[in-house]
Amino acid sequence: MSKNLEVSTLLDFYGQLLTDKQRETVEYYYNDDLSLGEIAENLGISRQGVRDSIKRAETVMFDAEEKLSLVKKSREFRNSLDVIRNHIDIIDERNMKIYRSDVINESIKVILKELEKIGKD
Amino acid sequence: MSKNLEVSTLLDFYGQLLTDKQRETVEYYYNDDLSLGEIAENLGISRQGVRDSIKRAETVMFDAEEKLSLVKKSREFRNSLDVIRNHIDIIDERNMKIYRSDVINESIKVILKELEKIGKD
Repeated sequence: MSKNLEVSTLLDFYGQLLTDKQRETVEYYYNDDLSLGEIAENLGISRQGVRDSIKRAETVMFDAEEKLSLVKKSREFRNSLDVIRNHIDIIDERNMKIYRSDVINESIKVILKELEKIGKD
Repeated sequence: MSKNLEVSTLLDFYGQLLTDKQRETVEYYYNDDLSLGEIAENLGISRQGVRDSIKRAETVMFDAEEKLSLVKKSREFRNSLDVIRNHIDIIDERNMKIYRSDVINESIKVILKELEKIGKD
């Protein structure tokens, strides 16, 4: 995973821990791919100010991940959701082709809805 | 939910954000139900030092919950897991009683194992 992708992911999880200025500079730099000079001009601060703000933001977010592991846990969680979805599909296919149970069909629908809900976080 | 329970829950999610001293004082106070005087004696610091440490720890954790909502999200997540488990039980019962499909049975086992795994976080 590239550095950029990694910081963008950290932003999704820990962006709320940053100050407005930190978040703004990091989003410009990593999500919008602006140069330090362009960000400096946009925000009316020095290039060095932009660089410092991004560095501090990265420190806050890497530090938070080291302590809370939200990104790591989220990956493991998503793997489990994939496994569950695949096996729900297997049950669904069997049921549709062979048993045609409305009760099972309804339960599958409810489960898929809940999986979609928790998959969004 | 009582104040104590709430702080204990916050500790599960955000304890890693505290200093060792903050975590120690809060655990003694909320989990072990020691008095400020007892904690002061255990740690060899003043009662006021204990009180300040607990206050700071609470501030860090309530602030983190306001920004990251991990406790709130975890509750919603657990509700969804309960719904999914209930409907897996319904499918399982139907299958056991009526269709006796080994394929469905195997998939249910895998799903229950994954649900247990993600339910631990």
